[in-house]
Amino acid sequence: MTDKDSRVLALVSGLTETQKDELQALCGTRYRVEDVSGRRDDLASMGDAVEIVYGMVRPAELAVLTGLRWVQTSWTGVENLLYPEMIASDVVVTCSRGHCSVQLAETTVAGLLYFWRGLPEFFQASQSGVWASETRARVFEGSRAMVLGVGEIGAVIARKLHALGVRVRGVNTSGRPATGCDEVCTLGQARDRLGDVDLLAVGLPASPHTRKFVDGPFLRALRPGAVVANISRGSVIDEAALLREIDSSQISGAMLDVTDPEPPPADSPLFGHPRVLLTGHRAAFPIENNETAYRIFKENLQRWLRGNHDTLAHVVDKGMGY
Amino acid sequence: MTDKDSRVLALVSGLTETQKDELQALCGTRYRVEDVSGRRDDLASMGDAVEIVYGMVRPAELAVLTGLRWVQTSWTGVENLLYPEMIASDVVVTCSRGHCSVQLAETTVAGLLYFWRGLPEFFQASQSGVWASETRARVFEGSRAMVLGVGEIGAVIARKLHALGVRVRGVNTSGRPATGCDEVCTLGQARDRLGDVDLLAVGLPASPHTRKFVDGPFLRALRPGAVVANISRGSVIDEAALLREIDSSQISGAMLDVTDPEPPPADSPLFGHPRVLLTGHRAAFPIENNETAYRIFKENLQRWLRGNHDTLAHVVDKGMGY
Repeated sequence: MTDKDSRVLALVSGLTETQKDELQALCGTRYRVEDVSGRRDDLASMGDAVEIVYGMVRPAELAVLTGLRWVQTSWTGVENLLYPEMIASDVVVTCSRGHCSVQLAETTVAGLLYFWRGLPEFFQASQSGVWASETRARVFEGSRAMVLGVGEIGAVIARKLHALGVRVRGVNTSGRPATGCDEVCTLGQARDRLGDVDLLAVGLPASPHTRKFVDGPFLRALRPGAVVANISRGSVIDEAALLREIDSSQISGAMLDVTDPEPPPADSPLFGHPRVLLTGHRAAFPIENNETAYRIFKENLQRWLRGNHDTLAHVVDKGMGY
Repeated sequence: MTDKDSRVLALVSGLTETQKDELQALCGTRYRVEDVSGRRDDLASMGDAVEIVYGMVRPAELAVLTGLRWVQTSWTGVENLLYPEMIASDVVVTCSRGHCSVQLAETTVAGLLYFWRGLPEFFQASQSGVWASETRARVFEGSRAMVLGVGEIGAVIARKLHALGVRVRGVNTSGRPATGCDEVCTLGQARDRLGDVDLLAVGLPASPHTRKFVDGPFLRALRPGAVVANISRGSVIDEAALLREIDSSQISGAMLDVTDPEPPPADSPLFGHPRVLLTGHRAAFPIENNETAYRIFKENLQRWLRGNHDTLAHVVDKGMGY
């Protein structure tokens, strides 16, 4: 830490002492590993010495970090990092794609089952001292799901739904086959294949192309009584339209880990709605020390140190937004 | 319906007109199919003419149905039918074992995921206008389940849990291998193999041998924070002990489709408990016209009519109670 001339690898996202020591050992004298996770104002003060950042870089910071070449995030959705100056820069952005995908997929499946098997009514009855309640429970096995966005996370959702006997239609940009999906179609085709969909799982990244992709007409084209789960980004769903369709019973319930904005305003009708389950951007919990994200970063750093910048994993396409 | 001398097949459990016609066609002149589902007082009045009953036979009815030879139930758990007079009689009892097993397994998985993934806290927060709540969510994949009773229903529970990456220890009387289970032990061994169990699914039939099998010591031997689901019979669990262990956080939640007695008294602490989800003996819904139970009965009736009484399926062992 005495070599003031060496380049800096700055940690904005937190890591354990062991992880930090391991990174410093990998870097040798080439980079000085500086932990600014508890004092991030120091990031900008290091100026052009910073060549690599693990975590978020804000626009004002980017302006002074003139030596910055690579940003690795400890999370999956990078739309907050893709502001115009970052897009215009030469800085390489990589993300921890699929980080916590098992947890996110499990919360999605839990949320879909919760509504599909009638648990909200059962819980309501149970709390009110009612034994034999009306139930809208339906059979999950043999129902049909659309997983909108079968990337790293969507593929795990698809695999788990498939394992429970659900027929899964995946959606991605190219329509190429994806794990766990009985069939795959493109985003362009998705709107014409909604009529038999009981369960909609949203795993699309936030981008100008996906903004309010799930709108009123989309929701009304699903099979009546469909259930929605969103663990990607709130902006992908038109929330006002979703609430209208829930109130008309076209949609029988929604589990939302993400909203737009986040958190919702205190007077948002999402709060207190009996058919909305908000999971407060915690569907990925427990995150457990960011071990997965750390492993992705360490592997990428080794490639970077070997000079193989072209082989970095999970490079973000700044135009596509993910 | 004019032949007053023919033997009677009496339907106490309801069937559709088509199903009834189909049964009468199978029986020809050998049995007259009588639907007493809407007027069951008529059952006893038919006296010794009744040879087969589809549905419940009460002790007072058994006393006058002196020609009764076979009772087929449209449900799985037959303890209410196994009163001393029925046990002492020569009447063959068959059940619709595994009827609605997919629905029961799905409600079980939904209930276990509900507690394991922290949905009660999320719903509570969501209802109270809180976004970022504390969560006790844990990873389902890699957790360990015990399925107590891997009969027709328990095996489907095991299969579904296994499909979600849970390691499943099945329990049955003999310890013989069972579908979906990574390992199987006997009821006698179960108590010594609780220390690593996160998820307990109860699928044991009610009998004097299983009464309060899951008691305080059993629950305290599970891994701290375990979740319980019961879709078989309330008498298998000591409810007072369960509530104590929930209140001490040894058990982090329980989904109970069945209680003892049923329904619970209005002042039961099961009602209104935030960590108890009662599903009001409706976990098997939707039952959809009893089609599965009907198919089991029809197949058994064909065997009976061919004179192959020894080949009836799902014959109840009156001593074992299932």
